[in-house]
Amino acid sequence: MEQFANFKNLVNEALQKADFGGRPDQLYQPIRYTMDGEGKRLRPVLMLAACDLFGGEPEKILEAAIGIELFHNFTLLHDDIMDNAKKRRGKDTVHRKWDNNTAILSGDTMFALAYRWLLKTKHPQIAEMLGTFTQTAIEVCEGQHYDMDFEKSPAVTIAEYLNMIRLKTAVLLGCSVKIGALAANASPRDVQLIYDFGVNIGIAFQLQDDLLDTFGDAEKTGKAPGGDILANKKTYLFLKCLETADAADRQKLLGFYTSNTNHNPQQKIDEVRGLMQKYDTEALAQQEMEQYYATSLHLLNLLYAPREKIEAMLAYAQWLYRRDH
Amino acid sequence: MEQFANFKNLVNEALQKADFGGRPDQLYQPIRYTMDGEGKRLRPVLMLAACDLFGGEPEKILEAAIGIELFHNFTLLHDDIMDNAKKRRGKDTVHRKWDNNTAILSGDTMFALAYRWLLKTKHPQIAEMLGTFTQTAIEVCEGQHYDMDFEKSPAVTIAEYLNMIRLKTAVLLGCSVKIGALAANASPRDVQLIYDFGVNIGIAFQLQDDLLDTFGDAEKTGKAPGGDILANKKTYLFLKCLETADAADRQKLLGFYTSNTNHNPQQKIDEVRGLMQKYDTEALAQQEMEQYYATSLHLLNLLYAPREKIEAMLAYAQWLYRRDH
Repeated sequence: MEQFANFKNLVNEALQKADFGGRPDQLYQPIRYTMDGEGKRLRPVLMLAACDLFGGEPEKILEAAIGIELFHNFTLLHDDIMDNAKKRRGKDTVHRKWDNNTAILSGDTMFALAYRWLLKTKHPQIAEMLGTFTQTAIEVCEGQHYDMDFEKSPAVTIAEYLNMIRLKTAVLLGCSVKIGALAANASPRDVQLIYDFGVNIGIAFQLQDDLLDTFGDAEKTGKAPGGDILANKKTYLFLKCLETADAADRQKLLGFYTSNTNHNPQQKIDEVRGLMQKYDTEALAQQEMEQYYATSLHLLNLLYAPREKIEAMLAYAQWLYRRDH
Repeated sequence: MEQFANFKNLVNEALQKADFGGRPDQLYQPIRYTMDGEGKRLRPVLMLAACDLFGGEPEKILEAAIGIELFHNFTLLHDDIMDNAKKRRGKDTVHRKWDNNTAILSGDTMFALAYRWLLKTKHPQIAEMLGTFTQTAIEVCEGQHYDMDFEKSPAVTIAEYLNMIRLKTAVLLGCSVKIGALAANASPRDVQLIYDFGVNIGIAFQLQDDLLDTFGDAEKTGKAPGGDILANKKTYLFLKCLETADAADRQKLLGFYTSNTNHNPQQKIDEVRGLMQKYDTEALAQQEMEQYYATSLHLLNLLYAPREKIEAMLAYAQWLYRRDH
C-alpha cells in the first residue's frame, strides 16, 4: 500500500508543479479552482500503478496522468451545469461561483488541455493511447446523456442502468489503466485484460456509491443517508426494488418517486428504505456489486506480471472496495 | 479553381459518407443536424489544398479534414449557447431547437469526435498534427473568452481586437493548412510559412466580414447592412472610428453603443455609418485588411512548391477575398 501512497504523492506533486495558468486569466481561474480540489486522484494513481505493474516507469507518464485528471474534472464541471448542482467537494460549483458561459468555456479549455498533457507523453504508442482516450471521452458523453435521459424516462431496466454507469464512470478507469499498460509496453492480451479489470471495478465502485448513499453509516460517510432517495435518483437499488416488489408496493415506491407530491423528507427515506428491506434490495445490490468486484480480481490474476505487483494491486483494489465512506 | 471545386466535392462526399450516428440517438441527432448545414467547408478545403501544394495526396487526409470541420462546428454550437444566438445559417440553433444541456453535451461529443476523425489519419507525424490541433483548440477558447469579455469591457484597443480575431478565427485556418502540409511531409520552414499564411488570411477575412456587415451591398450579401451596429459589437470599424474621432463625436458614438438607450434602428445605423464616413473608417479598415492579405500572399510566394500550385492557391485566396457577399 505504501507504493500506492507514493503514486498519489507523485501525482499531487506533479499537479502542484503543473501550470494551469494562461491568458485570459479569467478563463484559467476556474480551471485552477477545479484542479485545486483535494480529490482521491483515483484515475491517475491507477494509471501509474498499471504502468508499474508491467515494469514501466510511472514517472514517465505523469503528464498523461495529469491529462486524465483534467479530463475527469472537465466532465464534473460540465455535468454540474447540466445537473444544476450547487456544490462539488464542499465548494461552490464553477457555474455558480462564476456563470454558465464561463463554466462551458473553461470546461472546453480543460478538455483541450487534457489532450495537451496526454500529448506530452512521448511514446511510440501515443496514437493508440489517444485513440483509447478519445473513444472513452465519447462514451463518457454517451453515459451522461443516458443519465440525464433516465431522469425523464418512466421505465429504465437494470441492464440499461448498468450500461449507463459503465459508460459514465467505469470506462474512464479502464482507460486509465490501459494507458498505463500501453506505456509499459504490455502485450495486447494484458492491455485488454487490465482494461476490463478497470471497467469491472469501476462498475463495482459505482454500485458501492449507490449502496453507501442509501444504507451508509452517517458517522463514517460524513453525510446523512438518503440523498439519492430525496433526489428521486433511479439507482440500482430503486430499479431492483421496483423489479422485485409486488404490484401494490411497486405503486407505493413509484408514488414516492413522483416529484409533484410532497413528502416529509425523513419519512420518505424511512419508507423507501423499508420497502427495500422488505425485498432484500440491499443484499441483491451487494451481490451484483460483488460479482463485478470478483470479476475484476479474477482478471487481475490472469495478467502476466510479477506476483508481488499483482498482489499489491489486489490489495489496493480491496482497500478501495472495503471503504465504508 | 476547378481543383478547389474538386476539393470541396471530395469533402462533401466524405461528409455524406461519414456516419455521425450512434447511440443514444438524441445525442447524435444535433450533431448530424449541425454537420448537415451547407457550409463553405473552407477549413477542410484549405487543408486538402495545402497537402496538394506540397505534393501530398489529399485523398489520404479526408478524415482529418472532417475532423477540422467537426471541431469548427463544435465551436459554433457552444458559441451559440454563450451568445444566446437564435439562428445559424438560417436554421434554429441547437440550444433553441433542443435545449442548453443537449447543446453542451452534443458539443462536447463533437469535440471528441473531431479527435476521433483526426486520429484516423495514419501518419508518422500524427502527434505533431494533434499537437497543432490541440494548441489551436485552446487558442480558439481563449479567443472566444476575449470576445465575450470585450462586450462587457469599456475600453478595448485595436491591438486587443486583432489578437482576439487571430485567436478566435484565424489560427484555425493556420492549423488547417499546417496539418495539410505536415501530411505532405513539407519542410519545417514551409510548414511554418503556410501556417502564417493561414493566420494572416484568416485575419483579413474577419476584417472583411466586419466591413461587409456594415458597408456591404444588401443585394449581394443577402442581408441588410448594420447588424453589428445594432448589436453594439465592438468591431474593428467601431474601435477605429472611436480612436480617430474628436471628443464630441467620440461621445456621440459611445452614446449609440450604450444599450440602455433606445434608438430607432435605421437611424442608429445611418448615424453611426455617417460618423464612420466622416473619419474615413471604411478606408482605414480596408487598408488594414489589405496589409494582412498582402502579407498572406507574400508568404505563399516564399514556399518551395511548384509554381503552378502556388498560383492556384493564390487564385483561390483571391477568389475568397474578392467576394462581396
